[in-house]
Amino acid sequence: MVYIQRRETFSASHRLYNTTWSDAENEAVFGKCSNYYGHGHNFQLIVTVKGEVNPDTGFVINLVDLKTIMMEEVIQHVDHRNLNVDVPFLQGMLPSTENLAIAFWQRLAPAIALNGAELHCIRLIETENNFVEYYGV
Amino acid sequence: MVYIQRRETFSASHRLYNTTWSDAENEAVFGKCSNYYGHGHNFQLIVTVKGEVNPDTGFVINLVDLKTIMMEEVIQHVDHRNLNVDVPFLQGMLPSTENLAIAFWQRLAPAIALNGAELHCIRLIETENNFVEYYGV
Amino acid sequence: MVYIQRRETFSASHRLYNTTWSDAENEAVFGKCSNYYGHGHNFQLIVTVKGEVNPDTGFVINLVDLKTIMMEEVIQHVDHRNLNVDVPFLQGMLPSTENLAIAFWQRLAPAIALNGAELHCIRLIETENNFVEYYGV
Amino acid sequence: MVYIQRRETFSASHRLYNTTWSDAENEAVFGKCSNYYGHGHNFQLIVTVKGEVNPDTGFVINLVDLKTIMMEEVIQHVDHRNLNVDVPFLQGMLPSTENLAIAFWQRLAPAIALNGAELHCIRLIETENNFVEYYGV
Amino acid sequence: MVYIQRRETFSASHRLYNTTWSDAENEAVFGKCSNYYGHGHNFQLIVTVKGEVNPDTGFVINLVDLKTIMMEEVIQHVDHRNLNVDVPFLQGMLPSTENLAIAFWQRLAPAIALNGAELHCIRLIETENNFVEYYGV
Amino acid sequence: MVYIQRRETFSASHRLYNTTWSDAENEAVFGKCSNYYGHGHNFQLIVTVKGEVNPDTGFVINLVDLKTIMMEEVIQHVDHRNLNVDVPFLQGMLPSTENLAIAFWQRLAPAIALNGAELHCIRLIETENNFVEYYGV
Repeated sequence: MVYIQRRETFSASHRLYNTTWSDAENEAVFGKCSNYYGHGHNFQLIVTVKGEVNPDTGFVINLVDLKTIMMEEVIQHVDHRNLNVDVPFLQGMLPSTENLAIAFWQRLAPAIALNGAELHCIRLIETENNFVEYYGV
Repeated sequence: MVYIQRRETFSASHRLYNTTWSDAENEAVFGKCSNYYGHGHNFQLIVTVKGEVNPDTGFVINLVDLKTIMMEEVIQHVDHRNLNVDVPFLQGMLPSTENLAIAFWQRLAPAIALNGAELHCIRLIETENNFVEYYGV
Repeated sequence: MVYIQRRETFSASHRLYNTTWSDAENEAVFGKCSNYYGHGHNFQLIVTVKGEVNPDTGFVINLVDLKTIMMEEVIQHVDHRNLNVDVPFLQGMLPSTENLAIAFWQRLAPAIALNGAELHCIRLIETENNFVEYYGV
Repeated sequence: MVYIQRRETFSASHRLYNTTWSDAENEAVFGKCSNYYGHGHNFQLIVTVKGEVNPDTGFVINLVDLKTIMMEEVIQHVDHRNLNVDVPFLQGMLPSTENLAIAFWQRLAPAIALNGAELHCIRLIETENNFVEYYGV
Repeated sequence: MVYIQRRETFSASHRLYNTTWSDAENEAVFGKCSNYYGHGHNFQLIVTVKGEVNPDTGFVINLVDLKTIMMEEVIQHVDHRNLNVDVPFLQGMLPSTENLAIAFWQRLAPAIALNGAELHCIRLIETENNFVEYYGV
Repeated sequence: MVYIQRRETFSASHRLYNTTWSDAENEAVFGKCSNYYGHGHNFQLIVTVKGEVNPDTGFVINLVDLKTIMMEEVIQHVDHRNLNVDVPFLQGMLPSTENLAIAFWQRLAPAIALNGAELHCIRLIETENNFVEYYGV
C-alpha cells in the first residue's frame, strides 16, 4: 500500500457568518473573519490517494488523472470565486476550512473510486499557520 | 548602508474591474480576476528600509518599530478586508498588486522617514507565482 | 472527525548535555550540539486538534482559542529564551526536540481538553531537516 | 513512542518507460515523463523513525547516525545520478516515485533496525506538487 | 516604474561536460555534475518585467500574457527534457545555470518587448541552495 | 555579468545587549532579544558573487569553491555557536543581524577575490520575517 499526494492551489474569498445569529454573535465568534465584504486566501489542496502499485506503470494512480479529477471536481469551481455565493455545491454551508475539506471529500472520493483508487486524506492549507485534514470518517 | 527587511502577511479579497468599461471588456482583460463577488489571497508584504547601522544598537531601524509602522499604516487596514470597498486609502483605485504596492509605499515612506530611516522597496507577494516590487520612482 | 492544525514559531537557544556524563562523553554523543555556550533555532510548533465539527460554527475548535492556548501554555515561556535555564517547566530535562515535544504535549493536552477538544499530535520542527512528532502515547 | 524525521535531498534524472510496451503505449501512459533522454528533479527524502526516547540522550535515534545511514544507503547512490541506469539497486525497476519509495524502504529499514530503532515512514517529494508516502506494508 | 515578477517551474535533466576536455578534466572541474548519464533538477524560472503601470488596467503587463510568453518561449521547450540534447536553442552550449539564464533572456527579451514591456531580470533557481540572476548586460 | 548565489545555513544563539548601557536601557531597546541567557535562530546566509561567465566552464565561480569559502570563512565558525562569546572575529561586536552581515562580508570579500570573482551581496535571513542585505558600501 502506497500513499500518493497531489497539490493544487486556488485563490478564493469567503466570509464566516452564521445566518441564524445576530451580527454581534457573529462578531464575537468569528471576529475579523466575519467582515461583511469578505476576505480571501491562497488555499492549497493536497489530496492523498492510497492503493497498490500497478506493476506495469509503477503508479498507484496516474497523477495526470488525479490532477484532472481535482481540477474538474474542485479547483475550477472554487478558484477565483467567492465561496459563500459562487459555488453551487457549497450553498447553504458555512465555508470554514473544516467544512470545505469535508465538501471536497464528498466530491473527490467517488471520482477517485471510479478511477479504481481510494481517497485517503484531504489536506487543506488556508494560510501558512492554519490547516485541516479530513479522512472521511 | 545596510538594507533591512521585515515581512508581514494579510489575507484579503479583491476584484479587478475597471468601472469605466463594459463587463465584456473587463472579462476580456481581467478574466477570472473580475469575478463579480471577488476572490482573495494571502498577501505577503516585505518592506526594505535602508540606512547606516546605529553603533549603539547595531540596528538600521528597530524591527519592533518597523513592525508597528507596518501594522498601523497598512496591515490593520487591509487584513481580512475587501480591498475594493473596505479600505479608505484604496478608494477609487483598481486594486491590482502593482497599485497596492504603490499605495502602501505612499503610507509607509513618510512614517518610516519620521522614524529617521528611509524606505527602499515594497515587495508584495500575491501568490507563490506572482509578485511586485516598487522603489518609489 | 476533522483534524485542525495551528502553527506558531519561537526562537530559542539550547544545549544538549547530560550532566551525569563527562565532557568527553557528551562530545562523543552530542558533538557540536553540546557547545558550552549553546546554540539556537527558529522552532516551529504545529499542534493538531481532532474533533467533530460544530454545526453552528463550522469549527473543531476556534483557532483564536487554540492560538491563545499555545501562546499561554508554551510560546510565551520559550520564545527568546534559553531552554536549559529559563523555562521552569523544562527544568531538569535534557532539551532535545523529542523531550520538548513531550513536555509541550503535557501542557497543551489538558488546556485543550478544558476547551472541549482533544489534542492529537505535537509536531516540532527544529530545522528544515529535523522534526519530531508525538501523539501522547 | 516518538517519531523523529530527517530530510535529505538529492538531484537525479529518470525516465518513466515500460520496456515491454511500444513507444506509443508509453507515450499514452507516461506522456512527457517518457521523454527518451529523460528529465530530472530535486527529490526530498524524509525518513521517519519511531521509538522510545532514550533517557540518557533524549533521542529516539541520534540524527548524526540517521543521516549517516541515509547517506550510505540511499543518497550517495542516487544523488547526481540517472535512476534508470546508474543505480545497481534500482536495476530492472520502473523508477516511479512510488517504486523509489519502496526501494529506499528496503535498504533503510534493516540499517535502521541494526541501529536499534524502527523505520516508520518513507516520504519522497518529487516536485512541490507530487509526493509519496510508504509505511512498509 | 514598477517591477512585476512571474514564477514558472520546469523539471529537466542536464550534464555539465566540456566536450573539448578529457573525462579527467571534466571530473576535476564538474565532479558529480559531469555524471555520464546526467542528473536533474526542478528548476524555478522567475522573470521580472519593469514598466509604468497602465492606468486602465493597473498592470505593468498582463500576467496572462507574461505566462503565455514564458510557456511558449521557454517552458514548453525545456520541461521534462534533457537540456544537453533535446532543446534546439541550447545546442552547443554547456547547460550551466548561468548559461541557461542568458539563453532564456535572449528568447524572452524580444517577446516581452513585442508586448510593450521590458525584461529586467531572469532569476533561475536550480536547487534550494543554488540560484542565478541575469540582467541582460 | 551574471550573479550567482549560494545558500548555507547555520544554527546559533545570540543576545542583543549593549554593555555600556544599564539593564533597563537594554530592556527598553532590545526587549526579549536581550534575555540574559540568550536565544537563537536558524540563520540562512545567501552569498551573491558577480562576474563574467567563463566560456570553458559556464561558471561565474565554481559553486564547490564558493561553498568551501563560505564554510571555511563563516559557517564552521558560527554554526552551533554562541555569537556573543564563541566567535573570535565577532568579539566586541553587538551581534545584530546587520552587524553579522557586515562582519561576514569582511571575511568573504577577500577570499572570493582571491578566487578571481567579486562579492556582490550578503543576505542574512534570521527568521521567516526578518532579513538583512549588505552590498559592502
